[in-house]
Amino acid sequence: MNLHDLMRELREDNKSKIVLLVADGLGGLPMEPGGKTELETARTPNLDALTREGVCGLSLPVLPGITPGSGPGHLGLFGYDPLVYRIGRGILEALGINFDVGPRDVAVRGNFCTVDAAGKITDRRAGRPTTERCVEMCRLMQQIRIPGMELFVEPVREHRFVLVIRGDGLGDSVNDTDPQQTGVAPLSAGGVDTASQKTADAINHFAAEAERVLKEQAPTNAVTLRGFARYPKIDTLKDIYGLRAAAIAVYPMYKGLARLVGMDVLDAGATLGDQMETLRKVWDQYDFFFLHYKYSDSTGEDGNFPAKVEVIERLDTELPRVRALNPDVLIVTGDHSTPSKMKSHSWHPVPTVLWAKTCRTDAVTEFGEAQCLHGGLGRFEAKYLMSLAMAHAGRLGKYGA
Amino acid sequence: MNLHDLMRELREDNKSKIVLLVADGLGGLPMEPGGKTELETARTPNLDALTREGVCGLSLPVLPGITPGSGPGHLGLFGYDPLVYRIGRGILEALGINFDVGPRDVAVRGNFCTVDAAGKITDRRAGRPTTERCVEMCRLMQQIRIPGMELFVEPVREHRFVLVIRGDGLGDSVNDTDPQQTGVAPLSAGGVDTASQKTADAINHFAAEAERVLKEQAPTNAVTLRGFARYPKIDTLKDIYGLRAAAIAVYPMYKGLARLVGMDVLDAGATLGDQMETLRKVWDQYDFFFLHYKYSDSTGEDGNFPAKVEVIERLDTELPRVRALNPDVLIVTGDHSTPSKMKSHSWHPVPTVLWAKTCRTDAVTEFGEAQCLHGGLGRFEAKYLMSLAMAHAGRLGKYGA
Repeated sequence: MNLHDLMRELREDNKSKIVLLVADGLGGLPMEPGGKTELETARTPNLDALTREGVCGLSLPVLPGITPGSGPGHLGLFGYDPLVYRIGRGILEALGINFDVGPRDVAVRGNFCTVDAAGKITDRRAGRPTTERCVEMCRLMQQIRIPGMELFVEPVREHRFVLVIRGDGLGDSVNDTDPQQTGVAPLSAGGVDTASQKTADAINHFAAEAERVLKEQAPTNAVTLRGFARYPKIDTLKDIYGLRAAAIAVYPMYKGLARLVGMDVLDAGATLGDQMETLRKVWDQYDFFFLHYKYSDSTGEDGNFPAKVEVIERLDTELPRVRALNPDVLIVTGDHSTPSKMKSHSWHPVPTVLWAKTCRTDAVTEFGEAQCLHGGLGRFEAKYLMSLAMAHAGRLGKYGA
Repeated sequence: MNLHDLMRELREDNKSKIVLLVADGLGGLPMEPGGKTELETARTPNLDALTREGVCGLSLPVLPGITPGSGPGHLGLFGYDPLVYRIGRGILEALGINFDVGPRDVAVRGNFCTVDAAGKITDRRAGRPTTERCVEMCRLMQQIRIPGMELFVEPVREHRFVLVIRGDGLGDSVNDTDPQQTGVAPLSAGGVDTASQKTADAINHFAAEAERVLKEQAPTNAVTLRGFARYPKIDTLKDIYGLRAAAIAVYPMYKGLARLVGMDVLDAGATLGDQMETLRKVWDQYDFFFLHYKYSDSTGEDGNFPAKVEVIERLDTELPRVRALNPDVLIVTGDHSTPSKMKSHSWHPVPTVLWAKTCRTDAVTEFGEAQCLHGGLGRFEAKYLMSLAMAHAGRLGKYGA
C-alpha cells in the first residue's frame, strides 16, 4: 500500500497544530578533522531545550549518497517520495520567479543567445546582458502570439528568462533547442508524442517569432529553450492528510513548492521576525505551518562557516516565538545539508528534532549532527516525517484492528 | 525510479579513485556471552586509525535475518539488489572453477553417482571418488557431442563436476535430474518453456551418452544434473557508474563474480602482499578497485577463532599500502558475517568503515561490531554502499534543481 493511501485511510481530524520549521541546508561538516559542524558550533539554547524534551534523528532526504536540489529536498519533507514525484527544471525556474504556474502549463527555461547573419550561434549567453536589458527584451517577446494558447515571457536575470505556454493537451517530452555549442543554429524542437509535438510546434513558432522581434537587438538577437516541464500532478496536503496548510516563506521558489502541494502561501514579510509575526496572526486559521529559513543554506553555499553559525544562532533566538503559540508538534529540520566546507548541497543526513507531548524523548541534550545520530528517530527517510508529525499530533488512527 | 537509472542520471566523471576492500565473512560473534568478536579481539591499529578519520556503520547484506551466500553478498556490495539480481547455482559453480561463462551459456552442477544393472541409483555420490578420478571421468565425458551446441565438462572435486552447454536460445527452467534418493533411476530433464525444453533435450542426450561412456567405470558409472542456470543479464559497473573497475582477487569465484559485473580481473598473485603490489602497479589505469581477502571467511567457517583474529591482524598490517596510494574513497567491509562460533555464514550485520575527505566523521575510534553500531552510516543495506562511494568520490551530481 502506498503511503498516501495509508494516510487517507488512517487520518483523523482534530484541533492540533503542527509546525515544520525548515532551516534550508541545515546539516554541515567540520572544517577540520576532529572539529565541530556549524550547528554544533552555534550557541543554540532554545534548540537545545527543545532537543532535551523532544526526540531527535537524522533525515535522509532521498537515499544514501544522493544530494537533493531544493525541489526533491522539500517534497520529501512534505511527505512525497522525491524519487516518484519529480518537478521539472522549467517548473522550478518559474516557481523561482514567483510565476503562478498551473495545471495547463508547460514551463521552459529560455536563454538569450547571439546569432550571425547565417543564423549560427556565436555566443550561447548573448554576452551576458544586464538584467535591465533582459527585462526589455522579454517585453519585446511578450508581443508574440500563438493561436489557441496563452504565452508568458518573464525575465529571470542576465541572459535567462522563463517561457510558459498555457493550453490544453500540451506535453513536455520535447528536446532542448540549445545545441550546447557555437557555430551551429539553435535546434528545432520535436516532441516524442502528439501532445509533446503540439508543444514543440508552438516552441518552433515562438523561436522564429523571437528572432523576428529581436532582429535589430544583437547581441540578444535569438533564443534557445530547454528544461520543458509540465505542471506536475500532485495531490495536496489537504487531500492526503486533511491538513489546512500555510507556507510562511520569503523566497519565491519555496513559496512555489508550497503552492504545488496545495499550501496557502502567506505574505511573510522579509525577515524571520516578520515570518513569526505572520505565524502568530494566522495561527487559528490553519493546522499545519511550513516556515522556511533560507540563510543556513546561502551561507553554506558561500563557504562562510562563521556566517552559517551566526544565522543558525539568529534562528535559535526566534524559536521561543513559535513555542509561545503552543504547537502540538514542532519539528526543526533541513531539506538537505549544505556544508560550508563543500560550498554546495550534499548528501549528508540532516539533523532533526521533533517535539510533541507524546514523543518518546531520547538522551540527546544538544542539537547537532553527532548528537542526533543517537536520537530516537534514528536515521529515517525524509518522506516519513509527515506520518511522524501526524501521529504525534494525534491525527492518525490505528492501522488494522 | 530504479537506483541504477538514478546513478546513470547523476553520475559525473572525475579522476577520483575508490578502493573497496572486502574481508570475506568479516563480521563475527563472541565465543562466550560478554566476550569480544574476532574483529574486536584483533589488534588493528591501522583499521582503527581509518575508523577515527572515517565514518562507520553496519551493512545488512540482504535484509534483516537473511544470510547470504558469496554471490548475493558481493552483488550487494557492488550495488546490485541481491533480491533482484540472482545468480544461479550452476553459474556460481562454474565461476568457482574459473570457467569463463558467457551470455550463450547454461551452466549445470553435475554429480557422479552409481547405478545398478537396472539403472537405479545405489550411491548418489558414487562412493566419493578421488579428485584425480573425477578429472579422468570428466575427460571421458568430454568426447560427448551434441549437434548445434558446444559442451564443456569440467571437474570440480570428488564426485562433483560442472557441465556448460553453449548455444542459442537455451532456457534454464529445467528440473534437477537428481531424485534425492537411491533405488530409483535419475530423473528425466524437462523444460517449462520451449527454450528450457531445448536445454532439457540436450541434457537427456548428455546423460544417456554419459552412461554409455562411463559404462565400465563403476562406481562412477552415471551422472545427475542440477542447478540449471543461464548467464545472468547484468549491467556492468561501467554502464551504471561510469567506473573503470578492476578486481584483485585470489579465489576463482570472486574473480568470476567481478567479471559478471564487468570488472577487469587482474592477475593478483597468491598473497595479500601480491594483491597490494598489483594494486600499486595498475593504480593509474582504473577508477575502482575491488580487493578480496578470503581468509576472514575460511577461518570463521573452520570455527577457528584465534586464526580468524590472526588473519584480520595480517590484513591490518597491509592496509598502509592502500593508504599510501592516496585513494579518494577507501571502504573496508565484508560480504557477510562468518562467526567462528557458528562455523558458517550468518545474517549478522557487517562492520563497515568508509574513509573520504568529505565524510562526516563519527565518534567511533575502533573498528568492531559494537563500535560500528554507533557509526554515522547507521545500519544500511549493502546495495547503497556504491552510491555512498560515488557521492564521497565527488562522482554524483545533484538530484533535481
